[in-house]
Amino acid sequence: MRERLKTKPSGTVCKYLFGPAILADNKRSFYNMLSLNIAHALMLSKQGIITPEEAGKILLAFLDLEREGNAAFNLNPEFEDYYFNLENYLIGKVGMEVGGKLHTARSRNDLHSTISRMNVRDQMIKLYPLLLNLREVLLKKAAEHTETVFTGYTHMQPAQPISIAFYFTAVAQGLERDYERMFTAYQRLNQCTLGSGAFAGTSFPIDRHYAAELLGFNGPMYNNMDAVASRDYLLELLGSFVNFGATINRFVNDLYIWATDEFSYIEVDDSLAASSSIMPQKKNSVTLEHCKAKTSHLLGAYVASFSCMKGTPYGHCRDIAGESIAPFWDAADQMEAILNLLGETVEKLIIKTGNMKKRADRNFCTVTELADELVKREGLSFRVAHHIVGSMVSQCLDSGLDASQMTVEMLNNASKEFAAKTFGWSQQELSSVLDSVNSVHNKHDYGAPSPKECQDMILRLSQKLDQDRASYLKSLDDLRSAREKLEAEIGKFAK
Amino acid sequence: MRERLKTKPSGTVCKYLFGPAILADNKRSFYNMLSLNIAHALMLSKQGIITPEEAGKILLAFLDLEREGNAAFNLNPEFEDYYFNLENYLIGKVGMEVGGKLHTARSRNDLHSTISRMNVRDQMIKLYPLLLNLREVLLKKAAEHTETVFTGYTHMQPAQPISIAFYFTAVAQGLERDYERMFTAYQRLNQCTLGSGAFAGTSFPIDRHYAAELLGFNGPMYNNMDAVASRDYLLELLGSFVNFGATINRFVNDLYIWATDEFSYIEVDDSLAASSSIMPQKKNSVTLEHCKAKTSHLLGAYVASFSCMKGTPYGHCRDIAGESIAPFWDAADQMEAILNLLGETVEKLIIKTGNMKKRADRNFCTVTELADELVKREGLSFRVAHHIVGSMVSQCLDSGLDASQMTVEMLNNASKEFAAKTFGWSQQELSSVLDSVNSVHNKHDYGAPSPKECQDMILRLSQKLDQDRASYLKSLDDLRSAREKLEAEIGKFAK
Amino acid sequence: MRERLKTKPSGTVCKYLFGPAILADNKRSFYNMLSLNIAHALMLSKQGIITPEEAGKILLAFLDLEREGNAAFNLNPEFEDYYFNLENYLIGKVGMEVGGKLHTARSRNDLHSTISRMNVRDQMIKLYPLLLNLREVLLKKAAEHTETVFTGYTHMQPAQPISIAFYFTAVAQGLERDYERMFTAYQRLNQCTLGSGAFAGTSFPIDRHYAAELLGFNGPMYNNMDAVASRDYLLELLGSFVNFGATINRFVNDLYIWATDEFSYIEVDDSLAASSSIMPQKKNSVTLEHCKAKTSHLLGAYVASFSCMKGTPYGHCRDIAGESIAPFWDAADQMEAILNLLGETVEKLIIKTGNMKKRADRNFCTVTELADELVKREGLSFRVAHHIVGSMVSQCLDSGLDASQMTVEMLNNASKEFAAKTFGWSQQELSSVLDSVNSVHNKHDYGAPSPKECQDMILRLSQKLDQDRASYLKSLDDLRSAREKLEAEIGKFAK
Amino acid sequence: MRERLKTKPSGTVCKYLFGPAILADNKRSFYNMLSLNIAHALMLSKQGIITPEEAGKILLAFLDLEREGNAAFNLNPEFEDYYFNLENYLIGKVGMEVGGKLHTARSRNDLHSTISRMNVRDQMIKLYPLLLNLREVLLKKAAEHTETVFTGYTHMQPAQPISIAFYFTAVAQGLERDYERMFTAYQRLNQCTLGSGAFAGTSFPIDRHYAAELLGFNGPMYNNMDAVASRDYLLELLGSFVNFGATINRFVNDLYIWATDEFSYIEVDDSLAASSSIMPQKKNSVTLEHCKAKTSHLLGAYVASFSCMKGTPYGHCRDIAGESIAPFWDAADQMEAILNLLGETVEKLIIKTGNMKKRADRNFCTVTELADELVKREGLSFRVAHHIVGSMVSQCLDSGLDASQMTVEMLNNASKEFAAKTFGWSQQELSSVLDSVNSVHNKHDYGAPSPKECQDMILRLSQKLDQDRASYLKSLDDLRSAREKLEAEIGKFAK
Repeated sequence: MRERLKTKPSGTVCKYLFGPAILADNKRSFYNMLSLNIAHALMLSKQGIITPEEAGKILLAFLDLEREGNAAFNLNPEFEDYYFNLENYLIGKVGMEVGGKLHTARSRNDLHSTISRMNVRDQMIKLYPLLLNLREVLLKKAAEHTETVFTGYTHMQPAQPISIAFYFTAVAQGLERDYERMFTAYQRLNQCTLGSGAFAGTSFPIDRHYAAELLGFNGPMYNNMDAVASRDYLLELLGSFVNFGATINRFVNDLYIWATDEFSYIEVDDSLAASSSIMPQKKNSVTLEHCKAKTSHLLGAYVASFSCMKGTPYGHCRDIAGESIAPFWDAADQMEAILNLLGETVEKLIIKTGNMKKRADRNFCTVTELADELVKREGLSFRVAHHIVGSMVSQCLDSGLDASQMTVEMLNNASKEFAAKTFGWSQQELSSVLDSVNSVHNKHDYGAPSPKECQDMILRLSQKLDQDRASYLKSLDDLRSAREKLEAEIGKFAK
Repeated sequence: MRERLKTKPSGTVCKYLFGPAILADNKRSFYNMLSLNIAHALMLSKQGIITPEEAGKILLAFLDLEREGNAAFNLNPEFEDYYFNLENYLIGKVGMEVGGKLHTARSRNDLHSTISRMNVRDQMIKLYPLLLNLREVLLKKAAEHTETVFTGYTHMQPAQPISIAFYFTAVAQGLERDYERMFTAYQRLNQCTLGSGAFAGTSFPIDRHYAAELLGFNGPMYNNMDAVASRDYLLELLGSFVNFGATINRFVNDLYIWATDEFSYIEVDDSLAASSSIMPQKKNSVTLEHCKAKTSHLLGAYVASFSCMKGTPYGHCRDIAGESIAPFWDAADQMEAILNLLGETVEKLIIKTGNMKKRADRNFCTVTELADELVKREGLSFRVAHHIVGSMVSQCLDSGLDASQMTVEMLNNASKEFAAKTFGWSQQELSSVLDSVNSVHNKHDYGAPSPKECQDMILRLSQKLDQDRASYLKSLDDLRSAREKLEAEIGKFAK
Repeated sequence: MRERLKTKPSGTVCKYLFGPAILADNKRSFYNMLSLNIAHALMLSKQGIITPEEAGKILLAFLDLEREGNAAFNLNPEFEDYYFNLENYLIGKVGMEVGGKLHTARSRNDLHSTISRMNVRDQMIKLYPLLLNLREVLLKKAAEHTETVFTGYTHMQPAQPISIAFYFTAVAQGLERDYERMFTAYQRLNQCTLGSGAFAGTSFPIDRHYAAELLGFNGPMYNNMDAVASRDYLLELLGSFVNFGATINRFVNDLYIWATDEFSYIEVDDSLAASSSIMPQKKNSVTLEHCKAKTSHLLGAYVASFSCMKGTPYGHCRDIAGESIAPFWDAADQMEAILNLLGETVEKLIIKTGNMKKRADRNFCTVTELADELVKREGLSFRVAHHIVGSMVSQCLDSGLDASQMTVEMLNNASKEFAAKTFGWSQQELSSVLDSVNSVHNKHDYGAPSPKECQDMILRLSQKLDQDRASYLKSLDDLRSAREKLEAEIGKFAK
Repeated sequence: MRERLKTKPSGTVCKYLFGPAILADNKRSFYNMLSLNIAHALMLSKQGIITPEEAGKILLAFLDLEREGNAAFNLNPEFEDYYFNLENYLIGKVGMEVGGKLHTARSRNDLHSTISRMNVRDQMIKLYPLLLNLREVLLKKAAEHTETVFTGYTHMQPAQPISIAFYFTAVAQGLERDYERMFTAYQRLNQCTLGSGAFAGTSFPIDRHYAAELLGFNGPMYNNMDAVASRDYLLELLGSFVNFGATINRFVNDLYIWATDEFSYIEVDDSLAASSSIMPQKKNSVTLEHCKAKTSHLLGAYVASFSCMKGTPYGHCRDIAGESIAPFWDAADQMEAILNLLGETVEKLIIKTGNMKKRADRNFCTVTELADELVKREGLSFRVAHHIVGSMVSQCLDSGLDASQMTVEMLNNASKEFAAKTFGWSQQELSSVLDSVNSVHNKHDYGAPSPKECQDMILRLSQKLDQDRASYLKSLDDLRSAREKLEAEIGKFAK
């Protein structure tokens, strides 16, 4: 194949380029490479480009190899790439006359671009259910904690009381969008580029739809050059990972803070913690640290992939075909790790409801409710009510009192100052307004934290989760049917 | 409002944070801020939270301000942000009793998060038609050049002949996907977060759907905390920019190379070129250079935005609300520049068809066709045919001959060596096989470069473009209707 | 100048490219552009390339313009760039015969590349003292708090007691390295590229060293092509910003956590906080949030700048000269904001020493000291001592006891289990070992937290700071001398 | 060690975190881990913290393990990390009483942070000579081609003639700075953090300087917390890689373009090219494509590493210690690949001098020389000369003439128009001015392309290369001496 080149590849090229790529392909692409070549041979035969006998011999050789497995496959880096190794194997088995016909009406470019899509598809098929599972785990935890009231924060300062259910559905709702993006990308990924040749198609009378069908694709990708040249699906998928990473990172960051000794809101299960080699008191939430950090690798992969594409031609080249996809594999591994580690962490999460409630009643997170009540009951403008309550808080802080120690007298003093009147509230009325559980129960607007609203949200999010799971299973089913069809077609030759 | 704080903001804070943010908002958010506050006042009145009289006064004050325009709006950085300046203005106009009620049942958090979405929406509404236009320009050029044959490259080496139409539809097809991603994101962007309060909702009986409708949103965003905390739409939009950048960058890179003296395939219009201050012969394709480079800023914005989000809580904070969105504005400006510059560059592109044809007939880009023909006519296996042709090419290169000088004798010599036979081809038959135009015409499979296939592709891509334009116009229409409804509601008070 | 081009630049090019660049240059480059052109004219005259009379006229025109200021400078985007505007102004003032000679023996490429270096130098000269100041502020705070003991954390869990002085010198030591990197880069930045022509030098007998000296550079940059083509100093400087950002981000992240209600270790000054529009209890540490987030923009700038360079030729082009530098300006502004905001925040920081001490005595952060003491006094192996103490901690946690409640009885029980013996410690001895202040005082090794060691560190770091300040002032002085020399040379013509 | 934790690590944690880290460490850290622990034991013994007998037993066990090699080392992920596996091995060999003493006066934090620095050092020590070699190869090529004239480009358009020597020294000069940055970073890398404990030092009377010396470090890193917490050296090193990548990428991009059929300036050696599976004429410069692309992974690593650090505390955590370093390993591998591939590519580069010269004489790249000569000989202002030559070029282009076809008549016609005079030049004089070789020879200013100047540059750059090589060898020597000292110290125990 290197007729025009007068020497074989240098040792450096074999060591750094051809060798590692071939080994990686043998691990990642073995089955897909065989399926693709079988499908191609079937198509050539169906279209009369090779004879059924020739196709039969090719199939037989590949089925043999499949049985032997990739461990036994003898690889030579001097053949440039994995496909040339496979072709060489084939010719060794069935002779040049027949084996030399397999590569009719295509090129390594469309072949490898299709293999890449199949390999990426394999990864995505593995990741979708993990994200579906994480959403489910969050909703399950939420359902258990619609009445677990704790402090909601803005700027990391106590802000207003909410519930664990409310917080966890917020995250689940964010992950719903992340899933949507990740799954939408599947449609653009799952298109078949086989038959596009080097990029300029072929003059052989091929059937691209048939090959696409046998390999489980939605159909052939139209313009042949676009099919071979483009890798935008990589950026789209990696972008969906990064978006997921942004959601997850902020959530895990909260968990990490909540697990500090100072907050003591949660604890991870001991099986997810590490100890110290010298500090006997330590329990370190290592899954949280790794989940946080690993989102960074997703960004790194995204940047590397784009940068590989930057400054390249709109045509096939190794920058695109070989290097721009390289970061994807690690990113997919990171995704798998994050999803598994985080799923288990949330599932086993210990929630210290007592600490949560205690803090919420003392840290002034309910005083906005007081301002609102002054508006509602006493007809004050909100800004005046805010002044009154602000002045009460200031007084408490100066005297070292917490929110549970606010009195009607303080209220009336402040009201006198800012609204020139006092109100006949009992201390019990005031305390009831300042109670964190009451405050949460009062918020029953669309999407608000009251238990009833949270149950509605959980229901709605669960329904969407079911739909998403159904769509995923449909995709899985399509792949299975395609596989069955491929095997049926092979079966015709076996007879 | 700073009751709890005993001092006003420091000069440094005003200089670097509050001041610039307020100025930027006055430029970017003036109209949206007024619309939003008017819609909120209308909602409060409709729900009986304030009286129609109060609402009327508020509306009047804001309509006055709108007439005066943002240039006249007096701003003070010590008020912390743009909204507090507006509220201060309002209270100055209508008094604390009424003005102090505007901020009932909401917070700056939901307000600013809604404003951000409206501002981003404004930008996107401006960008979509520019990308639709670029796709149209490409398809128009393609339609003019279905018969313009030139060399297709892989690894930047002459590979196989294609046509300009084929190449331009490849790019247009890529941009179709880029548009899809960018427009799909609009659905997740165009959700209303108003009424989510600080993040924990409100106990006032508000109507989130009504406010959302008046402001042109698809509807309210459900979970209140997610509504206030999340900015995933930023990463999604910026990601769609980066994806677009990857497509465009590679395309422009090709144009840039084609414009070299050595290729001489194209020239940009003189109005898009710059000269040299010392080299009188220079014509520099500056729009191409800037379009290539500007895609980098899109990546920079993406990275900065994600990084702002990294390590923050899943709740409102200024890292998210203020800083993570900052890179978007520049990115949108870069997109506008790229789309306008590239649209005009492609529209005015000078295509040197003569140079293209000449080169394609000589640079061996048609010899794969010869191998294919040997397979088809002489029943050789492709691998053997490849050996024959490879050996012919090698011989030509060694003798300094170009592809148009290949002879039947060479063919027969090589065939003898590799296939042990000769073929009775005439020189004319051989030349016809090696003709670049014939080669392109032969490729009439699905998505291949033949003129007929290209016309089909142009048709299909134009139909999709029409659909995309229709969806965009529908969105525009929805915004217009919402605006009319808002004005109608205002009108009821004017009477 | 556009002789070869038959049309003027299109409106789009003027709007998106030439116009904004010229306006930005007028703001940023006005004085540097004049100095550079004056220096060039002086050099041409000195070398006999133009006459002293010609040089005198040119100088006069530029000095006039300088007096009028950039606001009065009439700019036309159709002249392509800022220099052409200046040359046009000059020719308008002194005629083509003389004005047309200014651009002898150079090009816009070396001119703009020198201007870029001067502009970047201006920014750096502004930033260095801000970072020197931050280091000083940290050391001052450290010096005040050598005895302020608090909990050091690993994995955000209480680990071992340290002091504020120890922590702040750690940060100051990190910033020392950041400063080193940032200042080392100055040497590679401050090289003069003028006289390199378009990139290929010139055949006029110029004096590059003289021009370099007049403009305050270390000297001329050697190879002319490298001089014009390279912008590696941008990545180096931006990289030094990112490195600084990484240090600062982690430090600020800690301050942010320490300012939570739950930690209550510190508070920012009220002048650096923002309030809430609805939650009267809020005090939000906004300078911390912005400082954390702004480090992200530094990374974004770095990525964008590299990406602009990716895929470009090793020669002058607008991707490099115009776009790759664009992100630097915003990054420098972000640096200025961070340094000022953080400097003031640290300077005014309120440190709640009481809360710190209280927590350190209870949260088990001193138990490693206990294990160490068992090794030292009782000759246990560390691993056995660790087992003993680990078991005591476990028991406390299970019984809800804190570290101050550990007893000699617990110690002996655990020792019996793991070391098969007991020790005759008194409760007071145990308590003394577990005291956080004692623990800190015990750590007096090289770089450890004892007050004595911290004082040594503060001393050493202050000395290095003084050296760094001296080097900076030397650079400043060099620039001032160069300016004086330039003015002296001008003065010769004024006579 | 997990006394406080009631369960062993979960399967997920072992699978995704502990397991892979331990395996990677066994491959990467085996020898460094043993050296470090031996050095620590020697230090403990020297300081009297353990007895010489205890130290001897520990040493013996480790020397045994070293002989057996890492392949035989039995690893258990449930022990959390590599060190605990080692300690477990040790205790198995020498018993708890002795083995349990090894970890006295330190922590895994300082241990792993030192190991990281040793591992990174190993990589850097491998990379420096590769970059030194690349610089040497470039200078060697340059020295062979001081008279090889070809076209220099700006904006990828023919600009002015230069030589291969001039171009290659430009690149070598850029790489000189890249090397400086990379090697300066070594000083900040090569500091020993051992003895910093968990971050708060230790109360045992250790000798940090002694341990640092035995392990080949410059000395101990001062503040203990900074020592354990900081990883700024990673960003600095990765930043130096990115800077190198930017230089190299642009250079390789040029080579890639020059290798096109259209430029035909160079060819890579056949051993560095790949063929096509279907296009028999193809010779693809794959090393160039991979070198270009691989620079992107350097940026990705940089971004990932910074992002891991973003939002973490200024203290030890796994985000920093485990994840922020992860991208470094791949980046170092990419560097190794790039440096080897590019070194060989440049060394074997085929330079087609004939094509270069032919093109330079025709593509108008010498006309600036003509304008300069008109200034010098005829006293025109440069701007007028530029007009004259610009008009001549325009006329040629309109008539399809190349630069070698410019005539004295054209010159006089244009001069008449713009300068109202003609010059008595002979055609030969004009041709001589327009000759590309003459033009290059005329440029003999500081750093300009004339052969003499290039020889000077090569000399200067070679001298600097020699210095840099000497500094590198000095570092290597220091490591060797330290190793010898370590072995001598071990030797004392062996007796």
